[in-house]
Parts: sequence; structure tokens; C-alpha cells
Amino acid sequence: MKKLKISIIGAGNVAFHLARIFSEKGMRPFQILARNTEHHEEMIAFASKLITKTEELEPCDIFFLTVNDDAVSALASQIKLKNTLIVHTSGSLAGNAAASAENKCGVFYPLQTFSKQRYPDFNEIPVFIQAEDQESMLLLKQLASQITSHVHHSDDRMRKLLHLAAVFVSNFSHALYLLSEDFLKKESVPFEYLHPLIKETALKAISSDLNKSQTGPARRNDKKTLESHLSLLEQHPEKQEIYRLITRYILNKYHPDSYE
Amino acid sequence: MKKLKISIIGAGNVAFHLARIFSEKGMRPFQILARNTEHHEEMIAFASKLITKTEELEPCDIFFLTVNDDAVSALASQIKLKNTLIVHTSGSLAGNAAASAENKCGVFYPLQTFSKQRYPDFNEIPVFIQAEDQESMLLLKQLASQITSHVHHSDDRMRKLLHLAAVFVSNFSHALYLLSEDFLKKESVPFEYLHPLIKETALKAISSDLNKSQTGPARRNDKKTLESHLSLLEQHPEKQEIYRLITRYILNKYHPDSYE
Repeated sequence: MKKLKISIIGAGNVAFHLARIFSEKGMRPFQILARNTEHHEEMIAFASKLITKTEELEPCDIFFLTVNDDAVSALASQIKLKNTLIVHTSGSLAGNAAASAENKCGVFYPLQTFSKQRYPDFNEIPVFIQAEDQESMLLLKQLASQITSHVHHSDDRMRKLLHLAAVFVSNFSHALYLLSEDFLKKESVPFEYLHPLIKETALKAISSDLNKSQTGPARRNDKKTLESHLSLLEQHPEKQEIYRLITRYILNKYHPDSYE
Repeated sequence: MKKLKISIIGAGNVAFHLARIFSEKGMRPFQILARNTEHHEEMIAFASKLITKTEELEPCDIFFLTVNDDAVSALASQIKLKNTLIVHTSGSLAGNAAASAENKCGVFYPLQTFSKQRYPDFNEIPVFIQAEDQESMLLLKQLASQITSHVHHSDDRMRKLLHLAAVFVSNFSHALYLLSEDFLKKESVPFEYLHPLIKETALKAISSDLNKSQTGPARRNDKKTLESHLSLLEQHPEKQEIYRLITRYILNKYHPDSYE
């Protein structure tokens, strides 16, 4: 595999972790474009050149657009270079969102939640790739294989479904943590008591049959506890409604007959 | 500390793990009562005696009632012994649920999700204790300290709030995993792709400020993605409603001004 020239556009969490992992794997990006120079310091170890404007971009084999979904399309057309491959890293944009007249386009979607403080093992992270032709696809595949053992082809629908599922299992679980912290805090109960439970719940889920490992009062159809919980949430109508709805989902699944 | 005689009544997941950890710590239970002899085999290593009837119970220092909430009160009054301590392990029952005329009562609530296939590190698990007098409290404290570094006093309200929070962070997160697996399966997308995300979401939550680490389309107020997700869920009204409600919770928290 020839030495590829990589460009990263953006300075968010995905940009940071792609730049980091490519550097670690001996494929240090050639240039990183971050409009806000405040981000240059944290990225400097990961690139030969740090720039702030699209006009400063030099030719590369591949451009990663790791920016907000709304900015991808306009940015792709601002890259005044030819015969290069421009990919976005979004779960929800169409596969051709980075299309432009002069260049090829594709998708490079790592399915993980990134923050600059945490370095999850990249080798475990699934990366979903799409491209408009075979040559680009091969290039993406080679590149992805350098950083993870889990490279998959996707299409738009599959990627959107995965992104939607990611919102449920990650963003929404996190919201449930937040919501719990909120009502515990109001009564001075430390949320930290729940840390071992949060960890074990996740580890159990990835090592067992989800259908069999659902537990809790709704799973047991324990009406007394369900009612007592709803009454504890009297002062929190928004949380009470979430409790009611997810409980109904579980009851409906495991106790369809007793479900009123 | 004198050698305590421990009895465990029940053969569910909590009974199994209490019996196991007490055995491991050199405090092998004296007797375990399990009505269904099918469970005797898996418990046999953990007790000197396995019995099936309350009448067979011999005097002990402490009885753990690890049975369904509904059965605790009746069972406590069936124990025809005197001057012993009877505790339940429930998150939602009142502190005096195991009260009886002849014995003391209390609570020993380990805050964790247990299954017989998994052995989480007991030493990390918080155990909440309550008792009707100081002597019983001391006994529970000594006992709990043998198996975990996290022994806490609670009262009924605190324990109920913790149990409610546990339902949100554990049972409901699990339900969100299930729900996602369900719609992915319908389109032949493997749920396993989400495993690294599930793990990292939990580990991130227990090592960072929850308020700052919320991510996702609702957090960014990314209306286009939110609408696209809701339309992907058109055929799943129950899931769509859950999506809508948790999204509203996040929007309301982070974007109260733009919230319609």
C-alpha cells in the first residue's frame, strides 16, 4: 500500500480521534484544517501542517470532512482540487453528501461516541465505508483496515438505522443517567452509588441474550413497585412520563395479556 | 468478630450471589432454603445444609430473605424462631417489611443487577443497610464490610429513590438496547455493531460530568436528523413515542429557548 496523504477538516472529537489513531498507526495526516486556532495546539502532534482556510489546502489522496452535517455539502464544493476522494464521517447524511464536480465522494463512519478525554480501543470500533466507485472503496478499505479490525460496507439505509440505534443505546441511555442524577441530587443522594450498576448493565448486555436478561419491576409485572415509583415521580411530570412509556414498552413485550 | 451463622432463604440471583460471596469470604452460610430442589445443585457448594421448608430452619444469627417483595412479610412471620435478625434485600419494600413479634428486622440492599452467569466484583458494590436497633445495625455493618468496601446507612426514602434510579439507568437502558435490537433485526442489521458503543457510553458516564458529556442530535438541536429519525420510526409508533419523549427531555434541558 502506497503512503497515503491524508487531510482532516475539522477539530471536533471525531477529527481529534482520527488524527490521533492515524498518527499512532504511522499514517500521520499531512494537513489538518481547523478554523479556530484554539484547536491547533491539541492537534499539532498529529499533523505536518495546521491551517485555517480551505484555500490553503494542498492536494491529498483523501479528505475527511469531520464537521457538522449542515456544513459538509458546502465545504466539499469549496475544495478547489481535482481527482481526490472526499469523505464525510456522518451517520445520517446521504452517501453522496460530499459530492462535487471535480472529486470522488464517500463515507467513513466510525460507530462510537468520542470525547477528547477518553481513548477507547480503536481496533474494536466498527467503521462503515461507502464510495461511488470501486477504486475509492478499495482505498477506504485499506485505510480503515489500518486502524480497526471491524471494517464494513454499508448503504445509506443501514448506516442511518445504525445511527438511530446509536442514539437510543448511547445518547438516550446517557439522558436516563442525567435524569436520575437530577432527581437524586434534589434529595442529596450521590449518583456515584449507581456507577457499578451502570457498568455491569452495559457489560451484561454485550455478553448475553438481551431478551433473556431484561430485569426489573416491569419485566416481573410487579404492579406495586411500578405504582410506588410513579408516585415518587409525582413532582417530575416529564420523568414520570418517560417512566410510564418505557414501562409500557416492557410490559407490552413480556406481559401482553395483562397489559391494559 | 464472632463467627456468624448465616441463613439464606431463596434461590434467585441475589440469593446465589450472597451465598457465593459469603462462602468466598470464609462465611459459608449454615443453611439455604430453596423450595424448588432444582436450585439445590447450583447452591450446594455454598451451604452446609439445603432445605425446602421453613419448618426445617434451625436457629441462626441472621436470615436473609431474598425472595419476591410480595412474599417477604408472610415469610418473616413463618420463621418460628426467637431473637434472631431477619433482613430483606429489596430496594422498594419498607424497612420494617420483615418485622415479626419474636425477631428483629432490617434491610441489606446490594445495589447491582445480578445474573447467575456473571460475577461482578462484589467489593465495588454498594450495600445499603437499615435495622431497628443499634446492635442489629452493628451486626449488618460488620457482615457487609466483609464483602464490600461500600457499606452505607440508608432510610426508606433514600433506598426507594436509589431503586427508582436503578430502574432508569439499568432496566430502562436495557429496554433501549432491546428496542434497538428489535428494529435492526427487522432489517437484518447485526446489533453486535453497537457493542463497543454501549460499553464506552457506560464507562464514559462513570468517569465524566454527565451534564457536559451528553451528545447526539437532540443535544445539538439538530432538527434535520431528529426529523429523519422520527420518519425512520414511522412503522414503530411505540418506539417513535419513546424517541420523541426523551428527545424532548434533552431539548428542554439544553435548548429551552428553541423548544416549542
